[in-house]
Amino acid sequence: MSDRPQTPLLDRVKTPADMKSMSNAELTQLAYELRLETVYAVSQTGGHLGAGLGVIELTVAIHAVFEAPKDRLIWDVSHQCYPHKIITGRRDQMPTIRQKDGLSGFTKRSESPYDPFGAAHSSTSISAALGMAVARDLGGAPEHGIGDCIAVIGDGSISAGMAYEAMNNAGHLGKRMIVILNDNEMSIAPPTGAMSSYLSRLYAGAPFQEFKAAAKGAVSLLPPPFQEGARRAKELLKAATVGGTLFEELGFSYVGPIDGHDMEQLLAVLRTVKSRADGPVLIHAITKKGKGYAPAENAADGGHATAKFDFVTGKQKKSPSNAPSYTSVFGKALVDHAAEDSKIVAVTAAMPDGTGLKLMAERYPSRTFDVGIAEQHAVTFAAGLAAGGMKPFCAIYSTFLQRGYDQVVHDVALQRLPVRFPIDRAGLVGADGATHAGSFDIAFMANLPGMVVMAAADEAELVHMTATAVAHDDGPIAFRYPRGEGVGVEMPEKGQILEIGKSRLIQEGNRVALLSFGTRLSEVMTAAENLAAKGITPTVVDARFAKPLDEDAILNLARNHEALITIEEGAIGGFGSHVAQLLAENGVFDKGLKYRSMVLPDIFIDQASPADMYAAAAMNAPQIETKVLETLGIADMATRRA
Amino acid sequence: MSDRPQTPLLDRVKTPADMKSMSNAELTQLAYELRLETVYAVSQTGGHLGAGLGVIELTVAIHAVFEAPKDRLIWDVSHQCYPHKIITGRRDQMPTIRQKDGLSGFTKRSESPYDPFGAAHSSTSISAALGMAVARDLGGAPEHGIGDCIAVIGDGSISAGMAYEAMNNAGHLGKRMIVILNDNEMSIAPPTGAMSSYLSRLYAGAPFQEFKAAAKGAVSLLPPPFQEGARRAKELLKAATVGGTLFEELGFSYVGPIDGHDMEQLLAVLRTVKSRADGPVLIHAITKKGKGYAPAENAADGGHATAKFDFVTGKQKKSPSNAPSYTSVFGKALVDHAAEDSKIVAVTAAMPDGTGLKLMAERYPSRTFDVGIAEQHAVTFAAGLAAGGMKPFCAIYSTFLQRGYDQVVHDVALQRLPVRFPIDRAGLVGADGATHAGSFDIAFMANLPGMVVMAAADEAELVHMTATAVAHDDGPIAFRYPRGEGVGVEMPEKGQILEIGKSRLIQEGNRVALLSFGTRLSEVMTAAENLAAKGITPTVVDARFAKPLDEDAILNLARNHEALITIEEGAIGGFGSHVAQLLAENGVFDKGLKYRSMVLPDIFIDQASPADMYAAAAMNAPQIETKVLETLGIADMATRRA
Repeated sequence: MSDRPQTPLLDRVKTPADMKSMSNAELTQLAYELRLETVYAVSQTGGHLGAGLGVIELTVAIHAVFEAPKDRLIWDVSHQCYPHKIITGRRDQMPTIRQKDGLSGFTKRSESPYDPFGAAHSSTSISAALGMAVARDLGGAPEHGIGDCIAVIGDGSISAGMAYEAMNNAGHLGKRMIVILNDNEMSIAPPTGAMSSYLSRLYAGAPFQEFKAAAKGAVSLLPPPFQEGARRAKELLKAATVGGTLFEELGFSYVGPIDGHDMEQLLAVLRTVKSRADGPVLIHAITKKGKGYAPAENAADGGHATAKFDFVTGKQKKSPSNAPSYTSVFGKALVDHAAEDSKIVAVTAAMPDGTGLKLMAERYPSRTFDVGIAEQHAVTFAAGLAAGGMKPFCAIYSTFLQRGYDQVVHDVALQRLPVRFPIDRAGLVGADGATHAGSFDIAFMANLPGMVVMAAADEAELVHMTATAVAHDDGPIAFRYPRGEGVGVEMPEKGQILEIGKSRLIQEGNRVALLSFGTRLSEVMTAAENLAAKGITPTVVDARFAKPLDEDAILNLARNHEALITIEEGAIGGFGSHVAQLLAENGVFDKGLKYRSMVLPDIFIDQASPADMYAAAAMNAPQIETKVLETLGIADMATRRA
Repeated sequence: MSDRPQTPLLDRVKTPADMKSMSNAELTQLAYELRLETVYAVSQTGGHLGAGLGVIELTVAIHAVFEAPKDRLIWDVSHQCYPHKIITGRRDQMPTIRQKDGLSGFTKRSESPYDPFGAAHSSTSISAALGMAVARDLGGAPEHGIGDCIAVIGDGSISAGMAYEAMNNAGHLGKRMIVILNDNEMSIAPPTGAMSSYLSRLYAGAPFQEFKAAAKGAVSLLPPPFQEGARRAKELLKAATVGGTLFEELGFSYVGPIDGHDMEQLLAVLRTVKSRADGPVLIHAITKKGKGYAPAENAADGGHATAKFDFVTGKQKKSPSNAPSYTSVFGKALVDHAAEDSKIVAVTAAMPDGTGLKLMAERYPSRTFDVGIAEQHAVTFAAGLAAGGMKPFCAIYSTFLQRGYDQVVHDVALQRLPVRFPIDRAGLVGADGATHAGSFDIAFMANLPGMVVMAAADEAELVHMTATAVAHDDGPIAFRYPRGEGVGVEMPEKGQILEIGKSRLIQEGNRVALLSFGTRLSEVMTAAENLAAKGITPTVVDARFAKPLDEDAILNLARNHEALITIEEGAIGGFGSHVAQLLAENGVFDKGLKYRSMVLPDIFIDQASPADMYAAAAMNAPQIETKVLETLGIADMATRRA
């Protein structure tokens, strides 16, 4: 701990109230210390670094000028909330961030009154801030006394349709609220889309002090030294038939661009906005992701997320992995197919790295489409590609596919278009916690007519399922797989096309059949081994398909066993529910079957290691073993274990 | 049939190819005849009228200039597709529109090659057209030979986030494609939001011929007579620091505004765009919803949808209804509560009429928010309102709630915010068909931790559930109810607050228990009466709650009956799956129970009357009766019935 930075000013800040008496110079120094502290904290724990470093000055300036928690400060996505947590009473807990029972890596209502609205998915902040501003003006919670409502949103996030919908509504309602556009030309991936180049044009070559502010009175919002330049800009804009920035067209007063690392300028602008705003205001601040810490600044992704690292050298302490990640296995498998089939195209919504499509983008750039944070469009765009004869792979994490659900239903499934959905981050995901859990996709995909739904039991299966998806041209097909590394199985040279709706027998046993859908299979096998030592040899089947089900095989299992237990990394309504329906409709329950379905429990599970999260979900090998014993009525043994 | 209009030119048009030799004057006459024919056709069947009348000239001009089906024409939402259907070979089938086995009220891929992409939900057309344009440029389906890809989208639809996402991506990719903005200042409801006023400003006071076209070469796209005005506009815009229309900022060439009812102008613009476009082009056409038919033009909603009517007088032939609609019952119940509780606010996404919130908007305009076609924002805005201490009712149809699903999960359920979701159009909806079916909400809502999910069995129950939702402040709550009229039960004076998770016993019987969730209850009762005549008296229970389940009551039913059958107006994964899970986990199946779950079948059911659709779904009284007999093993009798 000897390299822990000296932070005398920061040490005095227990809550933002302690900053109120500080001078501008002291606040500048505080920002310096907060930056050091943020780097130090993340070096100890790993986590999201670059985004926080980019908003150090913004964080200090906002908390110096406004009065949280009365004023509601909402960080969009909230990867950038670490400095905010440090100066809102959570500094001592930073060593626990993203760990079991520790601080969330995101803002979280239940964690602190300084987090008035949790986030993790992108582009929700303006909607939430507007809701609070309206509640304030309607006298919604006078006991809380809502003050200003402030959304801080990145240029990647503001490009999403949802942010546009929110601005459209905010401009219409005209309520006082503040949107701070944190423009670092960088979401997780380099930003894409016309909006991004528009933002670049907005400040291209313009010195920061030359505010472009137009018709609707934004000039009066600027601190005096800047008003002259602003007036000039306004005159220019008035000459246009259709004047103003896009934000002004949407009804916002636009202030900017300003230098998001210049504390004096930030304080001046925020103070002026605070004292004079009477409607929605957008402050356009230019920042640099990873600012002030060379290893982050120099990284291609601005030091977005990191493992623990050495505070002095910046060297990451990542442990080397053995098995390849599911993500990379999929990425490579897809590229192999793309080499042979020019109809294969890939779509990602701002996650080329996370989905493994980066490789595809490098090899086949004209066939790889990063549409930005735009899952709704991504899905229907893929549907259009399919309608045009291509074989689109629309790769979206399970949790983000929720954003494009209607498009999956209405544009893909209803039209039976052969869109392929590789669903990464299926099941519990570890440090990202409940907001990123892929819990619901089996249920919400498998009840769509015509949809094929697979889950890979290991990384070799994922290769086969990618091949199967390439070959499946009669309607949509989805295949899910988890975050993290595979189990280390031998990899096939070539993916084999699976027969649609056929399961695979792993081991033949008796009394109890364990029917696994997805990567719990390895836990099931561990449980099976332990049970064997107790004289019970379960039959184990990898279902492979939640839809269509391998009906004959499942009915046979039911017929030939005393008990049948399904297990899946998903919430109720998915694989187990389809199996139960099959059994019920075939009268299997009439005469009795010890049927159980192990699904994710009816709670949102906080972050921990995936193994710990699955322990909390009661879905690891010991709990599977217990379930088998209990189901078979071998209660004593089960009780002894518990 | 004597009032059938004379349409000599239209009679010659079997497909758009028959229009190619027509002169501009003939096309103008054709448009006149097509308008008459459209009014006549809808007068015979009912359906969507105003939107089609607004695009008569556009329809003729597009089909005259472009070459469908090689050129792909995508109508957004496609309420306006009736004239298109008439001139693309489906004129003779128009009397069947929106009826069982007839034409769909929307475009539909399986219906005609002239419908390259089906629609019904808003704002999908640009994404789909872009996908096809990319497929074309990648040589996706050379056997089909994709030509131009054209999206026609209304000003309401283009305001949605999804359309913005698509334009953002289209501007970035720069592919040749054509978006025709059909701007009638009118979606189903008057448009709302800043984007709408922006569009108004775009053409306010400007004569149509004064094109505003800017930097990126749009001027060269204009037919010669218009170039002078355009050049002048361009000069003006060049003076601005940030020049151009919003569409140009997003990378489109902007042409307009033009008069969407002036055939000469439309033809000239489309021909020029066709010959010269080399990237994305947006043509801004001003039209009038209901154009050319006085009763529609004069209606507040532009004659959006209508029952059959008298062709000459315009008088609707709607049969008077007895019971109030669920929609109006909810609307009235909410207003009654709002009168007593100033914290109640309501949110709709462009459906104030359809959701019954119009009454609330009239009585309490400051507490009613129409956010436009923006379901994602609507849900998170409601979450913000809840976080600010209000009691938001976020009223979205079941099928459209799919658009805000991630927001329900991430912003509402995860934070346990007390947002109320009145879910109208639950279950099968009749003439709107599969695209509007509310099939999936039970499944996708009931597996969210902390969500309460109710379904009203009749209109009185809906009053109670509205009261229950007002009172429930500990997390989110949803209640679903169908399209159409109630069953005519006596209405309570005041809604009573239901105990969360408690079912209600309708009648006590033996052997078989029928556990109904939702408005199938009346069919269940009919079935029960018929069964009584056969000596079987079922126990009938209205579940009221899919979540939390009335566990004790359900386990008791299982204990005391030979058979238990659930029934719900939803797909697998919902109520029945939760009941099955409860029974399985409690070992009820171990010893045997004749359990069945009646859910919507695994198909998309085409439009018909709701009763016919439920017959197709095998969920009407006779089929419930058969199910009971079969389950009890009274097979002969069941066979005789079938």
